[in-house]
Amino acid sequence: MDHRFWNSAPRPGAIPGPIPHGGDLGGLRHAFPDAPEPWLDLSTGINPVPYPVPPVEASAWMRLPAAAEGEALREAAAMAYGAPDTAHVVPAPGTQILIETLPRLVAPTGVAVIGPTYAEHAAAWTRAGHRVAQVDGIAAIGDAAVAVLVDPNNPDGRTHPLPERLALADALRARGGLLVADEAFADLEPVASLCPHAAPGLVVLRSFGKTYGLAGLRLGFAVAEPGTADRIATALGPWAVSGPALAIGRAALSDTAWRAEAAQARAADAERLDRLIARGGGTIVGGTSLFRTADFPDGPGLYRRLAQAGIAVRRFPERPERLRFGLPAGKAAWCRLSRVLK
Amino acid sequence: MDHRFWNSAPRPGAIPGPIPHGGDLGGLRHAFPDAPEPWLDLSTGINPVPYPVPPVEASAWMRLPAAAEGEALREAAAMAYGAPDTAHVVPAPGTQILIETLPRLVAPTGVAVIGPTYAEHAAAWTRAGHRVAQVDGIAAIGDAAVAVLVDPNNPDGRTHPLPERLALADALRARGGLLVADEAFADLEPVASLCPHAAPGLVVLRSFGKTYGLAGLRLGFAVAEPGTADRIATALGPWAVSGPALAIGRAALSDTAWRAEAAQARAADAERLDRLIARGGGTIVGGTSLFRTADFPDGPGLYRRLAQAGIAVRRFPERPERLRFGLPAGKAAWCRLSRVLK
Repeated sequence: MDHRFWNSAPRPGAIPGPIPHGGDLGGLRHAFPDAPEPWLDLSTGINPVPYPVPPVEASAWMRLPAAAEGEALREAAAMAYGAPDTAHVVPAPGTQILIETLPRLVAPTGVAVIGPTYAEHAAAWTRAGHRVAQVDGIAAIGDAAVAVLVDPNNPDGRTHPLPERLALADALRARGGLLVADEAFADLEPVASLCPHAAPGLVVLRSFGKTYGLAGLRLGFAVAEPGTADRIATALGPWAVSGPALAIGRAALSDTAWRAEAAQARAADAERLDRLIARGGGTIVGGTSLFRTADFPDGPGLYRRLAQAGIAVRRFPERPERLRFGLPAGKAAWCRLSRVLK
Repeated sequence: MDHRFWNSAPRPGAIPGPIPHGGDLGGLRHAFPDAPEPWLDLSTGINPVPYPVPPVEASAWMRLPAAAEGEALREAAAMAYGAPDTAHVVPAPGTQILIETLPRLVAPTGVAVIGPTYAEHAAAWTRAGHRVAQVDGIAAIGDAAVAVLVDPNNPDGRTHPLPERLALADALRARGGLLVADEAFADLEPVASLCPHAAPGLVVLRSFGKTYGLAGLRLGFAVAEPGTADRIATALGPWAVSGPALAIGRAALSDTAWRAEAAQARAADAERLDRLIARGGGTIVGGTSLFRTADFPDGPGLYRRLAQAGIAVRRFPERPERLRFGLPAGKAAWCRLSRVLK
């Protein structure tokens, strides 16, 4: 097939290669065949204490999800995220597919990604033919029509006060642009969300799987003013979210008590993890209640020692001193980590 | 936000409105409040005898799906569909999202949809800014760069011999074009698939949920040569398919005995349904083993009588005489339908 056939081909050489992610131990098992099984996977920022999955009715697997079920999920999400109403909420099979889809809905333009941050943002905008620059702060976005801000940021946990984020959204709107505000890690943090401030030129992303420890379910949300929400929903088509995800997501998002307890418990875990990391010679860079990022005098050496002990953490090829730790769950996991970080 | 901001805006007036689908009884319940509950939903072409869902491990909900699990699913799908190898197979959360995504990967061009057929194809290509014409057969595609052929067709079951479909693919390839071959209803039919003939300029779509009666699971596939498959997979991003769908899909697609029995049993059901429809005054237009389409002297009247009896079938606003029936399952369901079609 003619290559000109395809849309929005990025400039030659601009296509990023595969991005390393946590959560897949295949490569580590291969590189460290003598590590004790089962591996302790601390390579993601997923809550290790999942929401208790309620029984799934057989019909949820069998039927096409009904419109009323989608509406009930949107209702629960609007409440949980503080969105004005259900017309502002777009459920998706994970936020990753929203990160991929959004750039293809926008005519090629200049994009500033405030980073370093979750690498899939810049990659997806690049693949869709946009000119993408990574900048180190809000002040540096220049005349980009689109800005991407992950707040709280992954992996360093950096946050911006709400007024700064609102001002950024306003500035982009004034120039006919768009702010993509990725709040994937906001659920359990004491940070204010942009969701209640939905307006044209603003798309907020929220992750379900991280907070609720159900990453395999594939559920995430875009929150945006209704016209924008409709464009995104149309791009995903009807029935993008599975029947089980509709039912489980609705139950979990309505359970405010569970979320409050999780926020408290994970914050305590994060403090405990910080103490362990400090004992292991690390300097905390930042993080959220679901992961902690630290610099070590010998990052690659510690990564190797952890892997030899069957513990997977996240490393950053461009910053060898830096490691990111997800939370252990249960006494045995904590002890296992503690034996290396001493 | 500036409307010029968005990509590929279709010509004014070209945006199709919402397309009616089967499988959602909300509107019918409202229109026929006195109908007996529960409704018998024959409005879809989904196998009413689902594949027995194996127990789902808790970790399938919790973890991000691993690359090895995706590969195992692709392996099972390649075998089931006759694709050359796993590099030709792209799993997705349902074929609908592939129907939405594909048009946005192609630079705006002329598209011929061979129809009437499943309406979302023309709608999705139109929304992505292409010039779309519905044509009544392969001979009528003219100089379109893209053709969409649903075979076996929904709702009339029309099929084309493999050599005709291959010739169409070759002709489009020769002009640097693309054939989208939607084989959503091919699994249980005695028809030859284009999957073994994957080559540049051909994308085959296969549905999982219809055959296996698990539409709520959200699983479907694109089969294409590896370069094209890679483009589609990249557009969906990693982890587009849920952990439970990976596990259940792999088990079901590997179970050739179940599929063979289902093909036989549903074909017998379809014959039985044809006899009922004929007794009810219908003239069979066509269909597959999962649905039958017929014309009636008074289509709207029969639709109403069925609804009053709590039975949902599919109607076609542009062809009031035509109704499509999914298969009943179980004695009570057959009796209930039989009481109206007499």
